[in-house]
Amino acid sequence: MKRLVGIDLGGTSIRAAVATGPASYDQERRAHRDTPATDGPEAVLGACAEAAIEAAGGAPDGIAIGIPGPLDPRSGIVFAAPHLKGWEGVPAQRLLEQAAGCPVAIHNDSNLAGYAEWVAGTGQGTRNFIFVIAGTGIGGALVVDGELYSGAAGTAAEVGHTPCGLDGPVCGQGHRGCLEGMASGSAIANRTKVAIASGEPSSLRDRGGDITTAIVAEAARAGDDLARRIFADAGRALGRAFGGLINVFGPDAIAIGGGLVNTADLLMPPLKAAIGELAFAVAAQHCRVEPAALGPDAGLVGAVAWAVRRFPD
Amino acid sequence: MKRLVGIDLGGTSIRAAVATGPASYDQERRAHRDTPATDGPEAVLGACAEAAIEAAGGAPDGIAIGIPGPLDPRSGIVFAAPHLKGWEGVPAQRLLEQAAGCPVAIHNDSNLAGYAEWVAGTGQGTRNFIFVIAGTGIGGALVVDGELYSGAAGTAAEVGHTPCGLDGPVCGQGHRGCLEGMASGSAIANRTKVAIASGEPSSLRDRGGDITTAIVAEAARAGDDLARRIFADAGRALGRAFGGLINVFGPDAIAIGGGLVNTADLLMPPLKAAIGELAFAVAAQHCRVEPAALGPDAGLVGAVAWAVRRFPD
Repeated sequence: MKRLVGIDLGGTSIRAAVATGPASYDQERRAHRDTPATDGPEAVLGACAEAAIEAAGGAPDGIAIGIPGPLDPRSGIVFAAPHLKGWEGVPAQRLLEQAAGCPVAIHNDSNLAGYAEWVAGTGQGTRNFIFVIAGTGIGGALVVDGELYSGAAGTAAEVGHTPCGLDGPVCGQGHRGCLEGMASGSAIANRTKVAIASGEPSSLRDRGGDITTAIVAEAARAGDDLARRIFADAGRALGRAFGGLINVFGPDAIAIGGGLVNTADLLMPPLKAAIGELAFAVAAQHCRVEPAALGPDAGLVGAVAWAVRRFPD
Repeated sequence: MKRLVGIDLGGTSIRAAVATGPASYDQERRAHRDTPATDGPEAVLGACAEAAIEAAGGAPDGIAIGIPGPLDPRSGIVFAAPHLKGWEGVPAQRLLEQAAGCPVAIHNDSNLAGYAEWVAGTGQGTRNFIFVIAGTGIGGALVVDGELYSGAAGTAAEVGHTPCGLDGPVCGQGHRGCLEGMASGSAIANRTKVAIASGEPSSLRDRGGDITTAIVAEAARAGDDLARRIFADAGRALGRAFGGLINVFGPDAIAIGGGLVNTADLLMPPLKAAIGELAFAVAAQHCRVEPAALGPDAGLVGAVAWAVRRFPD
């Protein structure tokens, strides 16, 4: 087998691992770097190359890297990466090929996490699969007829930026009334703060700016009405979005991953109840809706799996 | 070339035509029947077989038929057809094969109209294409990597039943807050009636129950504020839905067809303005949004094209 490396590039850390199979890596052959996020693309991709070479114990035969931002996997250009300074229109594939001395495939990090779930997680055995990753924001991945789907611009599967309410809150990307503005972790924290500021009673009144999704979840579990309503709204918005995706795309399964999976006890009941607000029964019956299986490791597993897929023996 | 027939089955009429090429039929070799809509599936499919045999001047070598309802093109089962009595779980492919004595392919009528637009209309030359047909209801078709896409249950591309507003009006399928409830022809007429009944001023006050989409359009063009607002809302809802579809699916083009194309002067400006409420710029730049090219003939052209595709020489 070729010496193939997967890299998960995040805003704070870079993780590299050597593939041992279609969706597995060698625990002993990993490397890590802090992300020099403010030093520009060359510095970041240089650190990625170092991690890859260290993990592989020499020049790899191929690298796949998941990058946190919209990009075109065909041209190898990153359009933007909001958590990395100076990443606009960056030829990341070419720069990393030069730094590491081997062929490189770039892809969006959420897309690769979804690919991992399709190869080795909740999506295993499906032909048409949707992965939704809900944390600070909401992203995703589509597998269509067994292929990771990128669309015309390379940027498909942005499921967080689909309609939710005509006059809903604005998300981090400036979109009014999209799913991310109602159901992401940031939205849950922000909506709670706004409600408290407008005078709604809540056990969280004295927390001030210190309100996070985890704190709202804790309050909801303890019976706080506002916190319960915010989670019910988020779950309903996710369920309605899933209903629409089921009607348009007719998947075999939808998996939900990311940090919000830690609040599945609060989100899944209203989510599952709301799917039927929009989904046709025959399509909904064909579609499993389940938490993702791989957890925070999905990004690295997906990069490894993509390296194996893109650089076969 | 084989003697292949396309059939467009509607609630009131059946049209059959003989294929002369990938998306063309012989004007001289057509046949027509009234749809015996209340007589059950055998009677309707019997009339379809008669029309096909008459058009072909004998037993055809293959038939493709567009049917107005959710169905599975692989199993040949129609789940429901709201405008035809007794059509629930009907093995339409098998019944029509028995009646016509040749192989049959069934598909959803909107899917085939979209296929026609892809082969010979606005979608020509694209790889990933969305067709939206807006009339009484809102349906559609997806072409993914050059294949008409059906999804797991065979029912994909129901773009009318995607989220619009959390508390929006209910559509004909009983879904609250979906696109169809805000932007279909029925929705435009219904929302106008409801607004007038609730006391809103309008030049249409005295029309009573006699309000149709065409009448609302006429009033909007004459400057009626209510009618203008109803069309602006419908256009905005369509544009936001298109924005979401662009983010998830990243198509090369979206074509809008169906009866509402007659009000494109009213719908397209707010529609195009609203795409950017949700769509990422890079994906939107890759996607043309245009009226469909083939008009009401798309259904029959699509059935002919599908017969040629499914039963090659």
